[in-house]
Amino acid sequence: MSVTSAKGFRASGIAAGIKDSGNPDLALVVNDGPLTAAAGVFTSNRVKAAPVVWSEQVLKSGAVKAVVLNSGGANACTGPAGFQDTHKTAEELAALLDASAAEVAVCSTGLIGVRLPMEALLSGLKTAAGALAADGGAAAATAIMTTDTVAKTAEARGTGYAVGGMAKGAGMLAPGLATMLVVLTTDAVADAGVLDSVLRAATKVTFDRVDSDGCMSTNDTVLLLASGASETVPDLAEFQAAVTSVCADLARQLIGDAEGATKDIAVEVVRAASEDEAVQVAKAVTRSNLFKCAMYGNDPNWGRVLSAVGTTDAAFEPDQLSVAINNVWVCRDGGVGEDRDLVDLTGREVKVTVDLAAGTSSATVWTNDLTPGYVHENSAYSS
Amino acid sequence: MSVTSAKGFRASGIAAGIKDSGNPDLALVVNDGPLTAAAGVFTSNRVKAAPVVWSEQVLKSGAVKAVVLNSGGANACTGPAGFQDTHKTAEELAALLDASAAEVAVCSTGLIGVRLPMEALLSGLKTAAGALAADGGAAAATAIMTTDTVAKTAEARGTGYAVGGMAKGAGMLAPGLATMLVVLTTDAVADAGVLDSVLRAATKVTFDRVDSDGCMSTNDTVLLLASGASETVPDLAEFQAAVTSVCADLARQLIGDAEGATKDIAVEVVRAASEDEAVQVAKAVTRSNLFKCAMYGNDPNWGRVLSAVGTTDAAFEPDQLSVAINNVWVCRDGGVGEDRDLVDLTGREVKVTVDLAAGTSSATVWTNDLTPGYVHENSAYSS
Repeated sequence: MSVTSAKGFRASGIAAGIKDSGNPDLALVVNDGPLTAAAGVFTSNRVKAAPVVWSEQVLKSGAVKAVVLNSGGANACTGPAGFQDTHKTAEELAALLDASAAEVAVCSTGLIGVRLPMEALLSGLKTAAGALAADGGAAAATAIMTTDTVAKTAEARGTGYAVGGMAKGAGMLAPGLATMLVVLTTDAVADAGVLDSVLRAATKVTFDRVDSDGCMSTNDTVLLLASGASETVPDLAEFQAAVTSVCADLARQLIGDAEGATKDIAVEVVRAASEDEAVQVAKAVTRSNLFKCAMYGNDPNWGRVLSAVGTTDAAFEPDQLSVAINNVWVCRDGGVGEDRDLVDLTGREVKVTVDLAAGTSSATVWTNDLTPGYVHENSAYSS
Repeated sequence: MSVTSAKGFRASGIAAGIKDSGNPDLALVVNDGPLTAAAGVFTSNRVKAAPVVWSEQVLKSGAVKAVVLNSGGANACTGPAGFQDTHKTAEELAALLDASAAEVAVCSTGLIGVRLPMEALLSGLKTAAGALAADGGAAAATAIMTTDTVAKTAEARGTGYAVGGMAKGAGMLAPGLATMLVVLTTDAVADAGVLDSVLRAATKVTFDRVDSDGCMSTNDTVLLLASGASETVPDLAEFQAAVTSVCADLARQLIGDAEGATKDIAVEVVRAASEDEAVQVAKAVTRSNLFKCAMYGNDPNWGRVLSAVGTTDAAFEPDQLSVAINNVWVCRDGGVGEDRDLVDLTGREVKVTVDLAAGTSSATVWTNDLTPGYVHENSAYSS
């Protein structure tokens, strides 16, 4: 289960010497067709890394033959020289694959503001191209890890076709996509327009509802490539469900491996006036450092939930707000509810429910607790 | 230097038994006139504590005879019964002072969602009223502390009059005022309208530009009381400067005592298209947990500054952004600038300058680093 779950794809992952550690740091995903249809979603950060600027242009054609991904350096805030590095990377891989650079997407992740070691990277491209294999998905997923502790892959099966994927991301996870690189593949027959609409609908309710630490990356990229190798034209609803399922699976894995986290927290807002307002309220809670510290301390401190809800302009009356933590309604109608000592917070997964009593819409946003481990990992180490 | 620096005020601070620790927890500030003019600014959180709802009503008259402040409980999210507790507190103090409850402001700070121990509080009011003294400002400042490690007081002298103040606040410090209670006093002759305009102008550039942890409180209150006892009608510009100076002094003390912090960080945005955009960009940086972790680790990680700036809609071009950390321009024109090893981050005070190259406006917002101490203090302890 990975980017090579779908027919028509080969992948590889190798150590090119980009990382000082010597760990794998260069991955390829190649679409052998017959189709090369593709869609992409990118960070909404206005400070975009060179590979994002490049890949956004590539995706405008709706065709991607190959994706090259490196960890060990984000190639962000590196100026015109950094953009040339991305361009050169695409050209070199295109030459190795007998393709056009305009069909090669590039993704990078790692420290911002540092040039990539191009000699090592270009030399690594040859090795990686030589290692391409129909079972190379696991190696590719490993080569894109930074502070990730586990490789992240997923797949779903449709009627006569497959959807596979891989992701990396452990910090800088926030709305409008996270510090994450995601490549999804399918052997279904679909054109770029269908892929684009399916991908946007899937990311809106999965990756966009993951907010580990409120920080938006310069490099976020989610790509969906279709090879058509199954010769199956999918039912659109089933295909949407399969792609969304793979995205949800990978998003859940990102939260589960977030830097320093000890809790995976689902903040569910119910009875909101609209889905947008439900998301707004949920994100206000997932952005509260005080709430996240309380979760780390197994403290069902619902006052911190209410004080976060109160910062939004969603429809609600303060004296009609209710909050449950792991299904114990510790706050009812804006005041004290059930005994907080009834709440068991010892497990890794926590559910916080906020009832706005203002409508019929709902949404869930996932986040993590704020821990000394998170602080340590992001202070002791330039990432 | 405190709320009793200005003539016409008495204050006290005692241990009423509201806190389990037995530390001082009840403070009074009484205006002996001849004027009882007052103005107030309150949290913009829609979930407001009972004392905030009460005091907002009191301040509508523009007259305050006395302020009663308790630590050890926020009286927030306590429903109609909590509001009755606030009302009863005001009535009892009014009776002791031969005043009207409608002239008694109430402030509370501590845990949300817990009723106050009213028997201890009401009994403490008598003790506190008996302890009122013209040099009681220091005792009052001590009695409003929660996780504060030091009492916070300030004063400024105008021509023939004084402005004094006290503050508490160490966590939940954020825009739209912080978890803070502030009482300012002056013996200048000023009516409620003047006090209101001076206070709003002062808080906008002081307390509203302090953002320690991004969390907005349910209880924030800043009051300015005038006794007129100096018989001096102040020059308005001088008076504004004096009040702003006391607010800035107290705001700086709040940042200096923030929970678990090891750094006081001034994020200065220059060459913005407007002051509002300068504040918006500064707050995006002060809200970035990754930036704050880097500061804790003495890591001049300017990429985290740029990625925060990129989340705003302020006017700038990404390739014209420059960033200095302690006056070393580590990022120039969106790319690598001076050697980051030149940055010395060993001191407690840090200055980060963001040059937007988009205009002539500027603003500074203060924040702290994110530390294991912050996490510990807010997880090991319900506050």
